[in-house]
Amino acid sequence: MAMQNYRLELSYDGSRYEGWQRQKRTENTIQGKVEAVLSRMTGTKVEVDGAGRTDAGVHAEGQVASVKLDTVLSETEICRYLNHYLPEDIAVQRVSLADMRFHARLNAVSKWYRYRIETGLPKHVFDRKYIWLYGEKLDTEVMQKAAAVLTGTHDFRSFCGNKNMKKSTIRTIEEIRITETENEVILDYTGDGFLQYMVRILTGTLVECGSGKRKPEEMYSILNACSREAAGITAPACGLTMMGVKYR
Amino acid sequence: MAMQNYRLELSYDGSRYEGWQRQKRTENTIQGKVEAVLSRMTGTKVEVDGAGRTDAGVHAEGQVASVKLDTVLSETEICRYLNHYLPEDIAVQRVSLADMRFHARLNAVSKWYRYRIETGLPKHVFDRKYIWLYGEKLDTEVMQKAAAVLTGTHDFRSFCGNKNMKKSTIRTIEEIRITETENEVILDYTGDGFLQYMVRILTGTLVECGSGKRKPEEMYSILNACSREAAGITAPACGLTMMGVKYR
Repeated sequence: MAMQNYRLELSYDGSRYEGWQRQKRTENTIQGKVEAVLSRMTGTKVEVDGAGRTDAGVHAEGQVASVKLDTVLSETEICRYLNHYLPEDIAVQRVSLADMRFHARLNAVSKWYRYRIETGLPKHVFDRKYIWLYGEKLDTEVMQKAAAVLTGTHDFRSFCGNKNMKKSTIRTIEEIRITETENEVILDYTGDGFLQYMVRILTGTLVECGSGKRKPEEMYSILNACSREAAGITAPACGLTMMGVKYR
Repeated sequence: MAMQNYRLELSYDGSRYEGWQRQKRTENTIQGKVEAVLSRMTGTKVEVDGAGRTDAGVHAEGQVASVKLDTVLSETEICRYLNHYLPEDIAVQRVSLADMRFHARLNAVSKWYRYRIETGLPKHVFDRKYIWLYGEKLDTEVMQKAAAVLTGTHDFRSFCGNKNMKKSTIRTIEEIRITETENEVILDYTGDGFLQYMVRILTGTLVECGSGKRKPEEMYSILNACSREAAGITAPACGLTMMGVKYR
């Protein structure tokens, strides 16, 4: 046997978890759960790299992870083993062999996050854990104007939840697509990477535009301020889902 | 003020409840919750009639109920009041004035129930509470043949969970529509009425056909037996959702 590199595609309901990333103070993370099952499977300590470190309470439909394993099991068998031993709110959709150099986070060229906002009176019974129950109408035309200012390459320090961030806070947002249905506004973000809480702070700020509290032109001064205080609120975690990751 | 008759359209996640119908031994029923809020709203004891008595753990997207109320509130205000005080897994989609003679159960001419079965390896993370996690492929052509035998007007005593049922067990199934996707089989039942556990026993029996345990021709002898023992297993409650009710 020899070590091989695998690519995992995962989905999870993040409601019960402290986010993706393994932590010392709790075993209740997605990465921790996946590593525990793979360590049990191989009999050795296993480390899994995820494309995005989703926050506590954030969900994923298309998280991608890479992991090196020494096992006789086939990809299908690994997938079945994981789904058998993982809790019911974490699922592996696919396991495939990858190039030894493939790294789910470092090789990602683009990520897609979706934020769902309920704007109507009737309650969502079946999706209630996956949507922000906002309950009021939003002016999506105004939100669209504000989103246009935020799209592109900028220093997003004002939209970063980590105030002591030492690395670069420059990111490129390819698109913020806003879709409106009768009782819901959906924000689809794609970009090369997102800072801590960035999608949720962008969403909170755009919602403040849609509700009339802010003007789209303010987005310029918020970006220039390079200060978290300049931007809007952090939208709740439950409305956010990591949808997918693109690789070259 | 005068008594007026209202029609309510409700949806609920039945996971946490002991079914629709009010019970003496528990307050944990949908009917009980709705009556409690309306009694609080009007200051008098209120009785709500639902079109279908969904079992414990069964969900609804389009349950209909009728209720006589003496209130100054408008239909929209009643709807808002209900959604405010009902738990997050019960929602009222619409409240409208109805003819004084309208009765949600007695006037229903047709009901639509949906049963969802997961047949694939990957787990459903987001819908897991609303689907039977069966996990194996089903031959839907065989199921279709068996369903054709069951469609129409028959004595469905073999498919009735209440062995001491004293009233007529004759019902008419208009249609059993079977839809297949990659990892899911959906059964849509429409008919003039369904006996206790009837949709779940029909589903359990059809699944036994789809998995090769039974032949479609057996449906004739099961119907003729007029005995619960002749039919298949009762499929789990979680996969079943009451979708809608038709009135003349």
